[in-house]
Amino acid sequence: MIDLPFLSDICRTTPSKIVLLVADGLGGAPHPDTGKSELETANLPNLDALAGESSCGLTTPVMTGITPGSGPGHMALFGYDPIKYLMGRGVLEALGIDVELGPGDVSSRGNFCTLDGDGLLVDRRAGRIPTAESAPLVELLDQIEVPGVSLSVYPVQDYRFVLVIRGEGLDDGVSETDPQVVGEAPLVPHALNESSRKAAEVVKAFAAAAQEVLGGRDRANMVLLRGFSKLPHLPDFGESYSLNPGAVAAYPMYRGLAKLVGMNVIPTGRSFDDELDTLEKNFDKHDFFFLHYKPADAAGEDGDFEAKVKCLEELDERIPRLRGLGPDVLVVAGDHATPAIMAGHSWHPVPVMINSDLTKGDGSPAFHERSCSTGSLGRLPATELMLLAMAHAGKLVKYGP
Amino acid sequence: MIDLPFLSDICRTTPSKIVLLVADGLGGAPHPDTGKSELETANLPNLDALAGESSCGLTTPVMTGITPGSGPGHMALFGYDPIKYLMGRGVLEALGIDVELGPGDVSSRGNFCTLDGDGLLVDRRAGRIPTAESAPLVELLDQIEVPGVSLSVYPVQDYRFVLVIRGEGLDDGVSETDPQVVGEAPLVPHALNESSRKAAEVVKAFAAAAQEVLGGRDRANMVLLRGFSKLPHLPDFGESYSLNPGAVAAYPMYRGLAKLVGMNVIPTGRSFDDELDTLEKNFDKHDFFFLHYKPADAAGEDGDFEAKVKCLEELDERIPRLRGLGPDVLVVAGDHATPAIMAGHSWHPVPVMINSDLTKGDGSPAFHERSCSTGSLGRLPATELMLLAMAHAGKLVKYGP
Repeated sequence: MIDLPFLSDICRTTPSKIVLLVADGLGGAPHPDTGKSELETANLPNLDALAGESSCGLTTPVMTGITPGSGPGHMALFGYDPIKYLMGRGVLEALGIDVELGPGDVSSRGNFCTLDGDGLLVDRRAGRIPTAESAPLVELLDQIEVPGVSLSVYPVQDYRFVLVIRGEGLDDGVSETDPQVVGEAPLVPHALNESSRKAAEVVKAFAAAAQEVLGGRDRANMVLLRGFSKLPHLPDFGESYSLNPGAVAAYPMYRGLAKLVGMNVIPTGRSFDDELDTLEKNFDKHDFFFLHYKPADAAGEDGDFEAKVKCLEELDERIPRLRGLGPDVLVVAGDHATPAIMAGHSWHPVPVMINSDLTKGDGSPAFHERSCSTGSLGRLPATELMLLAMAHAGKLVKYGP
Repeated sequence: MIDLPFLSDICRTTPSKIVLLVADGLGGAPHPDTGKSELETANLPNLDALAGESSCGLTTPVMTGITPGSGPGHMALFGYDPIKYLMGRGVLEALGIDVELGPGDVSSRGNFCTLDGDGLLVDRRAGRIPTAESAPLVELLDQIEVPGVSLSVYPVQDYRFVLVIRGEGLDDGVSETDPQVVGEAPLVPHALNESSRKAAEVVKAFAAAAQEVLGGRDRANMVLLRGFSKLPHLPDFGESYSLNPGAVAAYPMYRGLAKLVGMNVIPTGRSFDDELDTLEKNFDKHDFFFLHYKPADAAGEDGDFEAKVKCLEELDERIPRLRGLGPDVLVVAGDHATPAIMAGHSWHPVPVMINSDLTKGDGSPAFHERSCSTGSLGRLPATELMLLAMAHAGKLVKYGP
């Protein structure tokens, strides 16, 4: 949580409603042929109109030059110092599928992979097998037993699952088994520190048992495990800001993140339209909503400039519906940039806008990197965005006499 | 080094090459008659073209309003907090002429000066006597002995030398003997704290002996001593960024600075053309180069606007040669501004540009203060520049899941 000793003194609960729309991987970078970024290339009449009556700027997720994962990127937007509060992928994934975690449990992200006859990786994602094929395999893995601990394996989606190890004396300093390249064998996990020895032995035993159970198959005949992690201790989002927060996110990882900071995660469907349905139905139940839009990031990660442009246009089409709900404060932000020309996350500052009754006379001509760079918000650390949203919502009282 | 607990986790070694060209005193200020700065006045076709396909911005070397010396200015560009890692001029000067310093040694910058018959300063630099004249005088000074310590005096160039005091119980809190104005006598050095008493007594004895040895001469008949300092403890640049850094600098002080942070200082000649020869010959030996261009600063310090413009144009002419080497990332930066209208260093933010394959669609119309102020990098602390250079070179992996 943002390091303000007097934060709890100046936050107050009011009927006003804040919607924080996080467009994952929102920011981009200019295409070398056109000199225009994805946002500049896209036709975004609704976002541009919103920018015309919003305060615009650019957020820095972590620090200049630092490329954040989705975890640090979202933590920053929620106001948590992403350097202080780093958390593991295993924990996020587990929370995203509603697994109850205790403070001593070690979670790991897992996925099925395919080995050749020599035990070398030919596909790190086992052909992205569908859930229908992976579900029975997860059940097999869930029956694996290792003495001294309790193991649970949960399906996530397609080729992905979560392994949770419960027991005494477990720590999460365990090296991952994914070599990150094909043509090599899965790595043997080892302890990265003294206190993680037991957990490392358990993971090793589980991986060996998994190979035995799955080994007869043509594909999805082994597992890769990474992101070993325990629950971090985080200040509660709602308590910190005196808010009653609701989270609407189709993807497990973002639900997990929201749950981790204590938001009420509202069940929703798989698409952004489902998310908007959920938001509409629950709009009177909370005074803050975290709403997540995933597709633009995925297209950027694929290095598909045109697809990312299209995903941004699809988001744009849904802005009127969102505005129709009449949030007092609407924030459009991104957790990080995902420039298609890089086919991955990047360090670039991310466009942001805040719309409220106070910003009708402010505004930038369009919603993209270049116009936001001269917007009235300037550049700000992403961790400060929540304070601005709270301020526009009338939820922050004066500091000091 | 920039204060990121996870820096070593995200740096990786790759074949890509970074060149950090530091144009000393690069930034300027508008001339009152034309409203144009030195960079705006100069004809810089190559730098402007580079800006057209680079990400541009302005760096703040230390802090708003703070005028840095060359030491802090360079330390910041290398990513070291210049407030935390302050170092003395004596140490820099000693390292620049390849003097081996131990952790307890106190170094001082020295120069010959001329006193009149009453012992008052008439020339603080003794008419800038050439090395041919000063070398035998340095030998005389080197023979001075003070009980309890070992003294060494080394020639630097022209009227300048270095005094190194070696022995037990020395600290560097000694006041300088240069009154900074003519018409006054050299100051008597004194201890600025308890632990520096011994060193202060040694300096006092040395200064008295120097006056005795040189006193019979018409000019260069006394010395001035300042910048008393010991080696600071600095994190290693190459280790911190996982780089194999080479430094090419004609002037001793900048070589000293590079050596201090652990760079490999490559022997070179006296001109920037010599430096470019050296860079070319060694380009395959390192993945990072610090390349120093001095003349613009010297012209600015002389208050010669036209001369500084000319020095910038001379740098511009050499940019094609530099680009011809094909660095993956080329950064053009300055350690501080040296506006000719101030005839000295200043606090003004300094133009900067980063060129890489990722910046081809970005760019500013020219390379000067005004155009860079609206560049896509915005304003950034100089300490963050290395992170950006590393990011553009693909040498920083993602932080967090």
